[in-house]
Amino acid sequence: MATNKHIVLIGAGNVATHLGIAFKNAGLEIAQIYSRTEASASSLGKLLDAPFVTCTENIIEKADIYIVSVKDDALSTLIPDIVKGREEALFVHTAGSVPMDIWKGYASRHGVLYPMQTFSKERKIDFNTVSFFVEANNISDLQALKSMASLLSPKVYETSTEQRSYLHAAAVFACNFTNHMYALSARLLQEHGLPFDAMLPLIDETARKVHELSPHQAQTGPAIRCDTKVMNKHLTMLANEPKIKELYQMISNSIMSGITLQSCDMNSKTNKEND
Amino acid sequence: MATNKHIVLIGAGNVATHLGIAFKNAGLEIAQIYSRTEASASSLGKLLDAPFVTCTENIIEKADIYIVSVKDDALSTLIPDIVKGREEALFVHTAGSVPMDIWKGYASRHGVLYPMQTFSKERKIDFNTVSFFVEANNISDLQALKSMASLLSPKVYETSTEQRSYLHAAAVFACNFTNHMYALSARLLQEHGLPFDAMLPLIDETARKVHELSPHQAQTGPAIRCDTKVMNKHLTMLANEPKIKELYQMISNSIMSGITLQSCDMNSKTNKEND
Repeated sequence: MATNKHIVLIGAGNVATHLGIAFKNAGLEIAQIYSRTEASASSLGKLLDAPFVTCTENIIEKADIYIVSVKDDALSTLIPDIVKGREEALFVHTAGSVPMDIWKGYASRHGVLYPMQTFSKERKIDFNTVSFFVEANNISDLQALKSMASLLSPKVYETSTEQRSYLHAAAVFACNFTNHMYALSARLLQEHGLPFDAMLPLIDETARKVHELSPHQAQTGPAIRCDTKVMNKHLTMLANEPKIKELYQMISNSIMSGITLQSCDMNSKTNKEND
Repeated sequence: MATNKHIVLIGAGNVATHLGIAFKNAGLEIAQIYSRTEASASSLGKLLDAPFVTCTENIIEKADIYIVSVKDDALSTLIPDIVKGREEALFVHTAGSVPMDIWKGYASRHGVLYPMQTFSKERKIDFNTVSFFVEANNISDLQALKSMASLLSPKVYETSTEQRSYLHAAAVFACNFTNHMYALSARLLQEHGLPFDAMLPLIDETARKVHELSPHQAQTGPAIRCDTKVMNKHLTMLANEPKIKELYQMISNSIMSGITLQSCDMNSKTNKEND
């Protein structure tokens, strides 16, 4: 691969957009953008000052790397068309949950470049704080992917397909489900005339805490101290919201089940009184 | 109330400790500490350079305010003993989930000073970023509580007992349940030889995002895009963890139920491809 790498971006969604901006800012060249949808393709083309196409036949053949960021479902359908005529090039996808082997039988050089982050078009991403997970089917491309990712972030990890699957599942809990907890919180606040802003300091501290303590050590609240009085009160308050009530019960049970080695009596003697 | 307020702290747990340190640093005097447990009382006494007692009869009578931070369950049992002989003083508790009226019939002047934060002994708290919620049964004590809280934080809100209950329930979701999502994530990572540290950038960004977007807008992941292929894969991977699997299913359902106004087909056309 040349030093000044030529990248073709396949896809024009959130991940392609943020990666495109970051690699361009790092001095690499976005040689072309492909998206099936003309509006998306031209919009990202303008943003990155790069040519775009909407037919796979028009994708250029001489790029150093083809970075494919499309919906997981679309990937397997798209692969034969985008690889055809470019069988010797390096192809990578950016999905946490898709095996590297999806390329097998199509592209001889292939891999994965998975930036583990929650991407929204509305928000800038500081890739310097993003963990990248890379995988490739040969050593030299693995090194090249590591180098590319290192241009954007100091946190670059080599992981197998199986590890990446669990990483992705773990990220669903730490990010997607966490955000849903925020959303349920926001809904309860809104229904009782309270501003969500008042919750932000608590949200920030909850995230900061696990930089210093393990999540197990950092756990507070009625469930970890087996405070059934408070939990029952909350369940009564949530009577009109059966789905939220059921979640409250199940997540509380899950927290309590994690402390089965300690009896509730022992645990209630710790100083987790009314946080 | 005198300008240089004399505070008695009832309880020596996390909340009492952090509030004691903060009020002392703000120039108020910690006149005394009460805790049933000698070890806790003396330890906090040393930390705050203040006298301590372990019998309610020995609590001084001339303090400006008695701040009671004990386990919610212990509060109602303790109230008659600590108020006795001090019926005219101002008593407040610090619990999110306990009504102000718990003082009724005991202390003529009473209220609530609820700092909404997750307290662990191991971690310093910057109260400047903590939201305080205050309530009192008379205007002058309400003003005094607001002033006291304002010494520690710019975010001081007056809330009714009912609002505070929902606030507390909302905090359980945004903090305690969020931390449990981190803990489940950490467990999955550990089981597959991956460092929890790799997840921290994602955790931080998930928290930062809701400063700018509503949690509803910020939602990403397989459930919000109705990506059943990824969800089914994760459920299969979690087959050996029936409890975690059940939570995955329920929380995903909850996320999907929130988008019932949009059909899944419509939603899958948004650019939330593989975040």
